[in-house]
Amino acid sequence: MSPYQGASSSSFHGMWKDLLPLGRNKETGGYRRYAWTPADTECRAWFEEQARARGLAHETDRNGNQWAWYGDPAAPGAVVTGSHLDSVPDGGAYDGPLGVISAFAAYDELRARGAAFGKPLALVNFADEEGARFGLSCVGSRLAAGTLTPEGAYALRDADGISLPDAMEAAGQDPSALGPDPGRLARIGAFVELHIEQGRALALEERDTPVGVASAIWPHGRWRFDFHGEANHAGTTRLEDRRDPMLTYANTVLAARKKARLAGALATFGKVAVEPNGVNAVPSLVRGWLDSRAADQETLESVVAEIERAAAERGARDGVEVRVEAESTTPVVAFDHALRDRLAARLGGAPVLPTGAGHDAGILSASVPTAMLFVRNPTGVSHSPAETAAEDDCVAGVTALADVLEGLIA
Amino acid sequence: MSPYQGASSSSFHGMWKDLLPLGRNKETGGYRRYAWTPADTECRAWFEEQARARGLAHETDRNGNQWAWYGDPAAPGAVVTGSHLDSVPDGGAYDGPLGVISAFAAYDELRARGAAFGKPLALVNFADEEGARFGLSCVGSRLAAGTLTPEGAYALRDADGISLPDAMEAAGQDPSALGPDPGRLARIGAFVELHIEQGRALALEERDTPVGVASAIWPHGRWRFDFHGEANHAGTTRLEDRRDPMLTYANTVLAARKKARLAGALATFGKVAVEPNGVNAVPSLVRGWLDSRAADQETLESVVAEIERAAAERGARDGVEVRVEAESTTPVVAFDHALRDRLAARLGGAPVLPTGAGHDAGILSASVPTAMLFVRNPTGVSHSPAETAAEDDCVAGVTALADVLEGLIA
Repeated sequence: MSPYQGASSSSFHGMWKDLLPLGRNKETGGYRRYAWTPADTECRAWFEEQARARGLAHETDRNGNQWAWYGDPAAPGAVVTGSHLDSVPDGGAYDGPLGVISAFAAYDELRARGAAFGKPLALVNFADEEGARFGLSCVGSRLAAGTLTPEGAYALRDADGISLPDAMEAAGQDPSALGPDPGRLARIGAFVELHIEQGRALALEERDTPVGVASAIWPHGRWRFDFHGEANHAGTTRLEDRRDPMLTYANTVLAARKKARLAGALATFGKVAVEPNGVNAVPSLVRGWLDSRAADQETLESVVAEIERAAAERGARDGVEVRVEAESTTPVVAFDHALRDRLAARLGGAPVLPTGAGHDAGILSASVPTAMLFVRNPTGVSHSPAETAAEDDCVAGVTALADVLEGLIA
Repeated sequence: MSPYQGASSSSFHGMWKDLLPLGRNKETGGYRRYAWTPADTECRAWFEEQARARGLAHETDRNGNQWAWYGDPAAPGAVVTGSHLDSVPDGGAYDGPLGVISAFAAYDELRARGAAFGKPLALVNFADEEGARFGLSCVGSRLAAGTLTPEGAYALRDADGISLPDAMEAAGQDPSALGPDPGRLARIGAFVELHIEQGRALALEERDTPVGVASAIWPHGRWRFDFHGEANHAGTTRLEDRRDPMLTYANTVLAARKKARLAGALATFGKVAVEPNGVNAVPSLVRGWLDSRAADQETLESVVAEIERAAAERGARDGVEVRVEAESTTPVVAFDHALRDRLAARLGGAPVLPTGAGHDAGILSASVPTAMLFVRNPTGVSHSPAETAAEDDCVAGVTALADVLEGLIA
């Protein structure tokens, strides 16, 4: 039995079991909980049910984020914890939901401990964190923090051309008052997001410890590369008569990997769209999305500039025009130092390390003292059905979160 | 005025105008006339209307091919001309329809000339030539010739999982008697397909001549390359921990181009599917389709083997498993020599050259004396909305087809 096994264990397991089947694709085993789809609506109903079952006041804010309140939502200095329930395409069970379930389980643990609530506590589910449907991540927290304008949100469209407000309306959520929520954020004294570790950069496995504290989030962004060539018959067009954008794309993919490796950064082309995408047609357009991240802004900018240059050079050889557009960029996030140190101390000197992934916590950190806890991921695999964490580590995460919250609400 | 301008000109223009808007996408200007869709059904209704307007007996055979008969369909030695009305995704207006419209216009010309019909004449629209929906080309002619079995046809599925028989049924076509039609083919004395030139290999532009005769079709095929890696988070997975199939795919695209260039062959990756296809996810699977063609079978096989070897070698470096499956292969087609020489002579020594593109004429050539006429394509562009031919050249094609048919039906 784990040393962390406590009151939180059984409540954690019950919630985990209930949430597990929602939005799961039977063929891939992965989750398809995209914002404002029926699968997302089921997850949101589950959140509301959890709040009701505990007698917590459930509230959906005007940006679609869900809150479960213990204590007065209007009082200052609230302590908030939670994460998101939506997923990437065929994502794993832990990325997001672990933080929401752990929030409820930590609350249960605090009640079982008879903890003193000197401040209000809120559990939160942020809307559309992954951006799988509308292409922009952290929509709910960005709107609340004012880093995404209502106009920007209204202009978002999914692959079928459905706008974000139409999608919200179809899911029963009023989109008419999207926008900054400074009053709400000002009443938050601290926000702690618990999340499964992604990759092995935190090295919790090597350090043989189940929980770590985040120091910073690497600056990162998404860039859309449009490679414009000329559609043509693959069976009759001489190689020298072609303007084939697939060649330019392929060369750019390999260049991106090389530039990132040399700079100690990350660069990935994980999404592609081809027109007309016919077996016997030279494409007219290949569109590839670059995800890139680095420890500092200067390195990130220089890596992306080098990839753009490599694409343009090869494009000139292929007769292909390359256009690059930054779809989103997020500067480096340094989490609140005092809060971070307080958490690490409370957890008996847990490791403090940076992470490459964006989170709602990163968005909120500009307005609210924010911290993150990470639970060990033994394989490092993330954004995949193979994502996993040990049961004991999940329960250890709940206990650590409860410990941290107990100190903050006192 | 062109020297070819004759009775065929006005009938050609009227038909062209009627057919032009059907299945045209307003945004791209390209055609989306996929087999057994509403756009295809509109084209098929147009064909039937053309037959009726001329008093020709309209018939749909049990494989979905349409026939318009002048004379007795049961008599032996029929002369047949035509092509197809379906399109690739965002294809041009000429590929297929030019051969069907020219068939009707050449018939009009023969009647205007008062030509003697010693044999039955049939105009034909072959079903699903491009294979854009079900992934296999020339389905109608393959079924008739017996090179596609009914079981093989029943197993075809489109991207939405709809089977070919269900799609036919939804379009009002009975799929219950698909299969070889040897009696019908045995009654055909000659089949001539007129088609727009694709690419510049025939070099009609350089030769300053509007019409050429095909000698052969290069052997060609489609191979599906499945690159299996491991899905992972693009923001947190260290480069050295990845098994990224996009890298292996990209390297294979560039290797294919190089191997084809060195062998004087063609190799194209024009279609890609990625899973999960998320901006911040290393893909679990990249699937790319190779289209390759060469002047002879030995060269084709050696080029494809070299591409497979390059993919496997890079896959081993990337931790990516590569599986290759031949989806369709078509051996070299040498058209009937006697018919080919007869046509070239009748057209005053038109150039006789091989082509890289597959056609229903290639499928039928194993069972029926078959020939092809090509109309000049000034840019060589094909399978694209930019595909074009000069009006005078189209009318010259009709006149040439009428000349050829007049000799064959005598």
